[in-house]
Amino acid sequence: MSTLDITEVVVTPIAFPDPPLLNAAGVHQPWALRTVIEVHTGDGISGLGESYGDSGHLELLRATAKRLTGLDAFDVAGLRRLAGEVVGGVSDADAHGLTGASSVDKTVARVVSAFETALLDIQGRALGRPVYDLLGGLVRESVPFSAYLFYKWAAHPGAEPDAWGEAVDPEGIVAQARRMIDEYGFRSIKLKGGVFPPAEEIAAIRALREAFPEHPLRLDPNAAWKVATSIWVAAETEGLLEYLEDPAPGIDGMAAVAAAAPMPLATNMCVVGFADIAEAFAKRAVGVVLSDHHFWGGLRASAELAAICRVHGVGLSMHSNSHLGISLAAMTQLAAATPNLTYAVDTHIPWQSGNDVVAEPLSFQDGSIRVPRAPGLGVELDHDALGRMHENYRSCGIRDRDDETYMRGFDASFTNRKAYW
Amino acid sequence: MSTLDITEVVVTPIAFPDPPLLNAAGVHQPWALRTVIEVHTGDGISGLGESYGDSGHLELLRATAKRLTGLDAFDVAGLRRLAGEVVGGVSDADAHGLTGASSVDKTVARVVSAFETALLDIQGRALGRPVYDLLGGLVRESVPFSAYLFYKWAAHPGAEPDAWGEAVDPEGIVAQARRMIDEYGFRSIKLKGGVFPPAEEIAAIRALREAFPEHPLRLDPNAAWKVATSIWVAAETEGLLEYLEDPAPGIDGMAAVAAAAPMPLATNMCVVGFADIAEAFAKRAVGVVLSDHHFWGGLRASAELAAICRVHGVGLSMHSNSHLGISLAAMTQLAAATPNLTYAVDTHIPWQSGNDVVAEPLSFQDGSIRVPRAPGLGVELDHDALGRMHENYRSCGIRDRDDETYMRGFDASFTNRKAYW
Ligand SMILES: [Mg+2]
Ligand SMILES: [Mg+2]
Repeated sequence: MSTLDITEVVVTPIAFPDPPLLNAAGVHQPWALRTVIEVHTGDGISGLGESYGDSGHLELLRATAKRLTGLDAFDVAGLRRLAGEVVGGVSDADAHGLTGASSVDKTVARVVSAFETALLDIQGRALGRPVYDLLGGLVRESVPFSAYLFYKWAAHPGAEPDAWGEAVDPEGIVAQARRMIDEYGFRSIKLKGGVFPPAEEIAAIRALREAFPEHPLRLDPNAAWKVATSIWVAAETEGLLEYLEDPAPGIDGMAAVAAAAPMPLATNMCVVGFADIAEAFAKRAVGVVLSDHHFWGGLRASAELAAICRVHGVGLSMHSNSHLGISLAAMTQLAAATPNLTYAVDTHIPWQSGNDVVAEPLSFQDGSIRVPRAPGLGVELDHDALGRMHENYRSCGIRDRDDETYMRGFDASFTNRKAYW
Repeated sequence: MSTLDITEVVVTPIAFPDPPLLNAAGVHQPWALRTVIEVHTGDGISGLGESYGDSGHLELLRATAKRLTGLDAFDVAGLRRLAGEVVGGVSDADAHGLTGASSVDKTVARVVSAFETALLDIQGRALGRPVYDLLGGLVRESVPFSAYLFYKWAAHPGAEPDAWGEAVDPEGIVAQARRMIDEYGFRSIKLKGGVFPPAEEIAAIRALREAFPEHPLRLDPNAAWKVATSIWVAAETEGLLEYLEDPAPGIDGMAAVAAAAPMPLATNMCVVGFADIAEAFAKRAVGVVLSDHHFWGGLRASAELAAICRVHGVGLSMHSNSHLGISLAAMTQLAAATPNLTYAVDTHIPWQSGNDVVAEPLSFQDGSIRVPRAPGLGVELDHDALGRMHENYRSCGIRDRDDETYMRGFDASFTNRKAYW
């Protein structure tokens, strides 16, 4: 293993069909974007990464990729330096704003992550060992995931209905949960809220509790509520939720809700980078952080986040955007090596209709993924699928995720529901 | 690299001559104790660890060593489980109490560390790469160390004077500093205090400042002062110290001093495990943590500590007990991969008279160690030296570090100076 110098990095934007999933920002567009990263080394060992596909981010990924030739695949510190140089001064890539105001650190973290996963994949393959061995070793044989429910339309306007059908009321949500649990075996159930007035979403939670008396429940309105509303919802759902996720915007808003709420508050919106932690934890704004290696800066940075949560007695779960099998494998490797992963992990995989860029995606059994023992991330690229999905990208016309504008096409009065109710 | 299963673990207690260095707990005994760990694998690759040599700890190391056969050298999580099983219920090994009250977690951390270093050494050797590559990659080419000054007697009572001579006043301390800096090139200078009344130690600091106008200074009385005294010393040394280390005992005492002190307070006494962090940081008790992989639980745990300090804006330095070249190599590898190591690292190496268990110890140039590029930790065991030092251990009669009892042999009235002045 004399050299693992990087010889080539291929950055491929892709698109895959996405159902009309509703959220506080609008509705998912017909195509979800991602970027697939292939990093090749002189030894013939290659590694994979998966990241966001928005145009500004893609540009940064491409600019960084050009700089990586010659970098040693173990030199994650060097990757961080190069990404910092590329990002420095460039306008921010965090266009869809899901994780709050942009910052250079957050943008660098997103860029680093895409490549760090690929470098760890290379390192593991070179060693003949799974990535979890590079993160401190296996602490669990399988990783539990959650059923991620969405209010949704039956179809994208003007298109054929998808297989999941409509879900715009408690009955629809319960039916969706039943189908997803039958198929995947999930235990924890998460409802993406922030779509209907809070009373309707409370009714959906009650219906889920009745239909699934033993399944832990979560509700995530993506900060669509004011503080007073959040406190009211928290009181109404006492005893029903394992956590309430991002009810209101901002660290101060969350802290005000947390002081009154009977259940822990979780977040992937007000604690989204290392710079947020000291203030948020000091104010006791959150009881659970949803980590996400895509925006925290990679798998090692996410392990650091886990250590920080551990020493502060803050719980740890894992966030998901629309993603495919490379991300799923990276999430699984990270979870496999994280002792204090205290909640089941979110995933959008059931919504991707079996589309994937990996040849044999990791699969769910009883709601969990058995941690693969193959070297690296444990998945292989399906080059044909990649080519097809890149063609989708070229032809779909979407270059940035924008749920709000897409929604406005059908409801001109719609605005992002931040602190709306 | 099909198997790196552990086939044998050799645990060897050693002793080496130690000068009569004075501190708040008494005086160093004529022999310092350490334990050398050799971990062998089926592939013929071996790794090294170095740890404390006190009897209770040695017993735990031996008991854990017996359990490690068959463990994969990448399975640090498995090491942690096994060490936890060995320690669980066993009376604590932290007899000399330098890091405060004992706890199971702290005892497990000390045991894990001894072997984790060896496992990382094996991993690096198997990869043909330095350990820093397993910790995220190189962030500095060389690691700066500090001149660690001690008040000392000319000789152990009844023995020949050592080469360093007496240092019991400002002149002696300045002479010691001059000699150490001439020989090693250190920049930062640390004075171990807590030995003489604070005014005398302030005088020594002033003398050092006069003799070395450009060298950052530190003073560490090991919590020998009351809070009011500490605040007075802090005021008297304003502008002279890069940090004041453990002036008073306990998180609350340190917080009271920190609120008044013009310089940051550093600690290796009131924040010595992950359980201390939340309270100490919330109370702003310390501005700098001196990490030490020997008691924080290893190199990866120390990297976690670094991340925690980073997010809280707390500085990071590195603590040292009497140690040899395996520890020095491990400290260097860790420092090489730690971005936010904000101060030069402490080391006792100048006090060990060239004694070492490694064949070619890492050496200082301009006060720094150039990070070695050899695989693993970058040092090789000198088996002859190990044998000689083990004979020292067998014949020296010391089984536990006890500076206080040794001092009482010469001054029956002496007691540990905790909060004494
Ligand atoms: Mg969320
Ligand atoms: Mg100290």
